[in-house]
Amino acid sequence: MFSKKMKNLVPYVPGEQPQDQGYIKLNTNENPYPPSPRIDKFLQTFNTKKLRLYPDPLFLELREAIAEKYKIKKDQVFIGNGSDEVLAFSFYAFFDRSRGKLMFPEFTYSFYPVYCDLFNINYQKIPLTTDFSIDIKNFLHNTESCGIILPNPNAPTGILLPLKKVRDLLDRYIDNRVIIIDEAYIDFGGESAVSLIDKYKNLLVIQTFSKSRSLAGIRIGFAMGDKALIDALFVVKDSFNSYPANTLSLEIAKLAISDIKYSDSVIKNIIKTREKLSDTLKHIGWNVLPSTANFVFAEKLGIAGEKIYLKLKEKGVLVRYFNKPGINNFIRITIGTEYEIDVLIKKIKACF
Amino acid sequence: MFSKKMKNLVPYVPGEQPQDQGYIKLNTNENPYPPSPRIDKFLQTFNTKKLRLYPDPLFLELREAIAEKYKIKKDQVFIGNGSDEVLAFSFYAFFDRSRGKLMFPEFTYSFYPVYCDLFNINYQKIPLTTDFSIDIKNFLHNTESCGIILPNPNAPTGILLPLKKVRDLLDRYIDNRVIIIDEAYIDFGGESAVSLIDKYKNLLVIQTFSKSRSLAGIRIGFAMGDKALIDALFVVKDSFNSYPANTLSLEIAKLAISDIKYSDSVIKNIIKTREKLSDTLKHIGWNVLPSTANFVFAEKLGIAGEKIYLKLKEKGVLVRYFNKPGINNFIRITIGTEYEIDVLIKKIKACF
Repeated sequence: MFSKKMKNLVPYVPGEQPQDQGYIKLNTNENPYPPSPRIDKFLQTFNTKKLRLYPDPLFLELREAIAEKYKIKKDQVFIGNGSDEVLAFSFYAFFDRSRGKLMFPEFTYSFYPVYCDLFNINYQKIPLTTDFSIDIKNFLHNTESCGIILPNPNAPTGILLPLKKVRDLLDRYIDNRVIIIDEAYIDFGGESAVSLIDKYKNLLVIQTFSKSRSLAGIRIGFAMGDKALIDALFVVKDSFNSYPANTLSLEIAKLAISDIKYSDSVIKNIIKTREKLSDTLKHIGWNVLPSTANFVFAEKLGIAGEKIYLKLKEKGVLVRYFNKPGINNFIRITIGTEYEIDVLIKKIKACF
Repeated sequence: MFSKKMKNLVPYVPGEQPQDQGYIKLNTNENPYPPSPRIDKFLQTFNTKKLRLYPDPLFLELREAIAEKYKIKKDQVFIGNGSDEVLAFSFYAFFDRSRGKLMFPEFTYSFYPVYCDLFNINYQKIPLTTDFSIDIKNFLHNTESCGIILPNPNAPTGILLPLKKVRDLLDRYIDNRVIIIDEAYIDFGGESAVSLIDKYKNLLVIQTFSKSRSLAGIRIGFAMGDKALIDALFVVKDSFNSYPANTLSLEIAKLAISDIKYSDSVIKNIIKTREKLSDTLKHIGWNVLPSTANFVFAEKLGIAGEKIYLKLKEKGVLVRYFNKPGINNFIRITIGTEYEIDVLIKKIKACF
């Protein structure tokens, strides 16, 4: 009863989302702080009669708010149902088997190969350096490539590729193939490539409200790039779902993006806690990769990531590990509140 | 810069969604009444801190509420970001070119051919009878078919295929090909095929919160069918977007589906207004198809649908027409409040 395409699908497995609230949840890179307080007020006075109508299929108000914040034009912004949907539409629109392989880092967001299988795209994993960073030279050997996608900072490593290197990559790669910079975690200390979209017509920058803005629950992501790229994303969207972003989420995102003071203070706290966690782990003999994200990727030599994960879960703390050769000794720890990270540190010190 | 697949895409064009509120909006089959009052209370007291977390990727609570309402099992229910997304996932999961053509009615929801282009599915439009109804015999000639999709009641005609005929179709069609009954409008007087899903393992019934429950703005649709079909939809979902339904919409839908008394009263009002509109139009010489939906499809002989649409728009009332030979004399009128329909009738009487 199933289409032939189904045989190729091996779905992405997200981190656990336990419905009981008993865990300290440091496993899916959610923000430990609540979203902007403006959202409370908004929901308290929202006229629910508006929900009888379809949302704006052009997302005009939110696109304007994002354009204002990033000093770009509204027609350089696309909105989707989480950055995962924006990624899926982008894979469909820009990459295909006929023009070569899509390149992405060997260790990266594990949804990328899933989208490739979903849309029959060929791909090539590009090795990282021995210290787990990205060397752009490795992306320039392949002359038969249909595009590049890089998270920046990379996940699950947390390592940033400096903007200068992103620019080098754009300068040296084929200019009629799309390069996507997936900036889900850029706000935690990186510099966005959005400043380059006017110059590089093949650059698409994807961001989300799930991380720095504490709104994983509303499912809003966005892409910024040349109008031609944005128009292509609208063609895919309008061939899939006229209204992928719902009324409440669009309004909430608009409020969140304008409350810069609040998100700056949240980000500052998270960076402070991240540095404290990194320093402490190093101090007790862990190898901690230098993170510019809201998580750290760390290993205790000689102990498998799975084992650490299981032990910490038993102790009421959820982290994430990846069962892949090369990184299977690491755990990825989302930066929680200071209190949560203190608890984690205590458990780690007691157990390992 | 674009993938080859993009060349095939001709996006669906939804009805206008004017952002100014000046029109009487009878063009996109929205419900004129607000959603359940339980939703006001919910939003007023909602703890926005929950939005920092991802929603439940398994949609457990809403699936339970839907299962309870339709007396089926939770694992027979799938949730998506509007029934459009559920449809898109279903087209991907169940239909493909290698097993023949997908069949759907000649005049029907015009998103179906768009999904076929998106996922490279071959299709065949099956003629309606001269009175615009569906004759299931016409779906049984083709022995090389990969499936069937039927809206019931059909759109834009509004005509219902009685449940007995749906059962006949299931009995006589190939049992290893999926039949989708798209029941977006079933609550306005039809009888759902959900009662047949235990017997027919190839039957998928798709419904929405956008119409009878006045919640087009939250983007929640759902599918009901055998667990094997539901599992396949989860595989596609998890290869596209782990969390397509957001936290607030999941909660709101749960409240709406349990408020049966409220939705029954809304539906009763709409049916009453629909019958009044149909009778009045017939009385002034229009041809009105018998509707079991929240809209009527009607023509004034000798006047093109586009002309009627333009004249009514000028007068502040939005309806919809379809520029397709065979139905281009019709307009589709969404059932508004009694007041809105009275205004429409006055305008029609004055203009035509």
